[in-house]
Amino acid sequence: MPLKGTMFIGAERRPGSGPAITSYDPRTGAPLEPAYGTGTDEDVADACERAASAAVAYRSTSPGERAAFLERIAERIEDLGDELVDRAVAESGLPRGRIGGERDRTTAQLRLFADEVRAGEWADTRIDQALPDRRPAPRPDLRQRHLAVGPVAVFGASNFPLAFSVAGGDTASALAAGCPVVVKGHSAHLGTSELVGSAVADAVRDSGLPEGVFSLLFAAGNEVGQALVADPRIRAVGFTGSQAGGLALQRTAAARAVPIPVYAEMSSVNPVFLLPGALRERAAGLAEGFAGSLTLGAGQFCTNPGLIVAVDGPELTEFLATAVRVLAATTGQTMLTEGIHAAYERSTAGLLATEGVRELCAGLPGEGENAGVARLFSVAADVFLGRPELQDEAFGAASTVVICRDPEQLREVAAALRGQLTATVHHGEGDREVAAALLPLLEDRAGRILFDGWPTGVEVTHAMVHGGPYPATSDGRTTSVGTLAIRRFLRPVCYQNVPAELLPPEVSDENAYGLPRRVDGARR
Amino acid sequence: MPLKGTMFIGAERRPGSGPAITSYDPRTGAPLEPAYGTGTDEDVADACERAASAAVAYRSTSPGERAAFLERIAERIEDLGDELVDRAVAESGLPRGRIGGERDRTTAQLRLFADEVRAGEWADTRIDQALPDRRPAPRPDLRQRHLAVGPVAVFGASNFPLAFSVAGGDTASALAAGCPVVVKGHSAHLGTSELVGSAVADAVRDSGLPEGVFSLLFAAGNEVGQALVADPRIRAVGFTGSQAGGLALQRTAAARAVPIPVYAEMSSVNPVFLLPGALRERAAGLAEGFAGSLTLGAGQFCTNPGLIVAVDGPELTEFLATAVRVLAATTGQTMLTEGIHAAYERSTAGLLATEGVRELCAGLPGEGENAGVARLFSVAADVFLGRPELQDEAFGAASTVVICRDPEQLREVAAALRGQLTATVHHGEGDREVAAALLPLLEDRAGRILFDGWPTGVEVTHAMVHGGPYPATSDGRTTSVGTLAIRRFLRPVCYQNVPAELLPPEVSDENAYGLPRRVDGARR
Repeated sequence: MPLKGTMFIGAERRPGSGPAITSYDPRTGAPLEPAYGTGTDEDVADACERAASAAVAYRSTSPGERAAFLERIAERIEDLGDELVDRAVAESGLPRGRIGGERDRTTAQLRLFADEVRAGEWADTRIDQALPDRRPAPRPDLRQRHLAVGPVAVFGASNFPLAFSVAGGDTASALAAGCPVVVKGHSAHLGTSELVGSAVADAVRDSGLPEGVFSLLFAAGNEVGQALVADPRIRAVGFTGSQAGGLALQRTAAARAVPIPVYAEMSSVNPVFLLPGALRERAAGLAEGFAGSLTLGAGQFCTNPGLIVAVDGPELTEFLATAVRVLAATTGQTMLTEGIHAAYERSTAGLLATEGVRELCAGLPGEGENAGVARLFSVAADVFLGRPELQDEAFGAASTVVICRDPEQLREVAAALRGQLTATVHHGEGDREVAAALLPLLEDRAGRILFDGWPTGVEVTHAMVHGGPYPATSDGRTTSVGTLAIRRFLRPVCYQNVPAELLPPEVSDENAYGLPRRVDGARR
Repeated sequence: MPLKGTMFIGAERRPGSGPAITSYDPRTGAPLEPAYGTGTDEDVADACERAASAAVAYRSTSPGERAAFLERIAERIEDLGDELVDRAVAESGLPRGRIGGERDRTTAQLRLFADEVRAGEWADTRIDQALPDRRPAPRPDLRQRHLAVGPVAVFGASNFPLAFSVAGGDTASALAAGCPVVVKGHSAHLGTSELVGSAVADAVRDSGLPEGVFSLLFAAGNEVGQALVADPRIRAVGFTGSQAGGLALQRTAAARAVPIPVYAEMSSVNPVFLLPGALRERAAGLAEGFAGSLTLGAGQFCTNPGLIVAVDGPELTEFLATAVRVLAATTGQTMLTEGIHAAYERSTAGLLATEGVRELCAGLPGEGENAGVARLFSVAADVFLGRPELQDEAFGAASTVVICRDPEQLREVAAALRGQLTATVHHGEGDREVAAALLPLLEDRAGRILFDGWPTGVEVTHAMVHGGPYPATSDGRTTSVGTLAIRRFLRPVCYQNVPAELLPPEVSDENAYGLPRRVDGARR
């Protein structure tokens, strides 16, 4: 299918009339055809109007209809075949195997949400039966369900051109909830976005849904995204990206006549605690595992291990020696965009310029202009505790080792941490007490706590939490990966004495959709 | 038990060193003994520090322990006997029967949350089993639960001295979730607050819990409340009151280094749609029901029917004639405070001064300075649609009838409404089509939709939603009444490959608390 260089305003393929932009091959810096005209305020308004017009019809579809739609999107994405993989590789500089895997993750995610929609837990349906004889007054019939909030704005992320993009986790969970979606595609992946956008638009048509269920806009700057979040028809926002970007959207959302929730996944350094017993048992192995996790995908993961915390001693010295040896032999990989590479260079230069921070090693330079060189730093915990800026994320393959005096200082570092997506503990013989003392601190500071592994690699399942306290995300009560993500786009509604013929099927006596429900508090 | 005029900083009864205040009997304007010294920044910091110190121990209690604690609070409140009822009557001017009923509602609410804590649905526990043989990589063991967010600030409401106050719904749901609570008591109910505060503090001690689980502060102005919301140890806020008050707290919460959620229930005019068939069948009966709902408790309910929407015609004329006759014969009841009465007078004077608004009747003046006279206004829908300020709440027994040309204009009015706590439809023969067209509009605009009843009277059950889109509340994804309210004070945490001996009991294989759980997505 030849790329047409268009956006999707509902079913309409519309070439944007705003300033034209192109994607670039980050390995070569060469622009990639075609050029894409970008959206205007009018395009934003059109997409939002179609989404609003589709909202009631779409949220009124049965769980089975929405599930089949999500599955159809997955099939349509698979139908794109190699063309999608080729384009995503060209636009991201990521290896072909990784993109293929990400494509499979994206379609599996759509199918998981299809299963979850059918399972119906998301509706949290509750019926409190009428008590006509209650004194002093009868109790009415009360029924509760969770209902789609309305049109959702989704922002494609730079680092997952498929899994956190046009048909990624935010879109899948919003569509699963019954919300139309207006996507602002990432400007680094215009062709990938158009291809996936065509798959979604085709699935909308295949499924006989109103066209406004899905739109895709492109933008030359931040204005289109800001206008989208400001549009009164948008009811919630999903975003993965920088802290500055997330907070800017949140300010816009809060300043609306009717403020709306912004689910922004923003920044995390994903602390890893190497406990003394673990270092005694396997310092070299830990260092190899760490180097692999740090440099995977040029370090461009939200869950990249950017902070190592350990107690000083010969075992830590062994860990560092191995890490330095492995990382120094690592060739830099092409980063996603020129801008991301430049930001990485700035962040790591800033770290190096900080008093008390030492550079332990740098990897080998990679090919091309945008290769990110792996870097390892160290700092004493006393210095770290006095410099909050050392907790800032350096997006890329850089990590800082915080060297503690004793296990008590390890706990002090944990207590000083900002909100994180993940926190990791490596433990061994004799570490149980220290680990048990760390656990409640980490529960308060991270969405996911993992032991004896590495934080990169986020499973898409029911129990996953890819979220965490501010500033990891703007809303620590949720997750952007896993089936719980659907809850972000729902709100409860109660029906009191609503006549049977007017009750939505989700809360009717017949329970035509077979949703799980609680009746007078008991699960039926 | 003689009142001591103290706050509770944990277990410590502390006389506030800030400016002394008293409650007043609103029927006479007479001050009520004793005087209460108010809190200082130091008191706020002390209460928050004790709450933070208690947070991990308290959230680590078993569901059974927390449930027993909630039940103990209910018993301790009952033990206060007539003293509590007498004091609450004196401080609120509300009838004795109403206060007795509210006390029973408060203790029943605590017991309902005790049952809900034991039932364990709130934990939303999920286990995705490890798949060690999965290719290309094994799947780790993943476990998710919802965990208490930490110390919660609760603001007592003016209009429910017991049920939305020191041990009201916000406190009960926060304690049920496992969060310590710091209450800012309402200055109109100082003695009532001290009595209930002593019951809670006694229950903390009886239950062997850390003293920081509960504190109670009093304040002369807004500074103490603002300092409380700004304190970094506070993790969420529950508030019921004015829109100005709720938004001020939200601004403070958003400006923190780590912003926190504010659950503010702020304002609602609770539109009631009288459909043509209902008016044909029972105009006079509807008018009587309306007048009763409007004047109940001097109209001082969040769910007071402040807006009636109906199509013009002889049946509406009959409804209005009866409503005017009943309301004109209604004697004004004492309002909660001098300030609330003055605000009611200002709001109704503002309505009357609005071009196009007619006063249909005013009730009889009541005894004392602070009696609120019932007032009924009318306005043409054409005027209403052009004047958003006519949707402002006039807290008290005032209501405006919006007179529509035809059923289509009824829908236009519905579509123009702001977010509401409730929306009511009275329907009769031939109204099904109009009602079906209204329903999706009301679903988008209200937390609770009720048919053929009146919105006052909020059941405390599983299916209740006492919430709604902005500006009814600051967060339309939740409720402040009913068991779903517990979710406001929880966040999800995922445990990946955490060793069995370190796993919290809530997600352990043994499931010692017998919590309901989903294993690989299926309910077990």
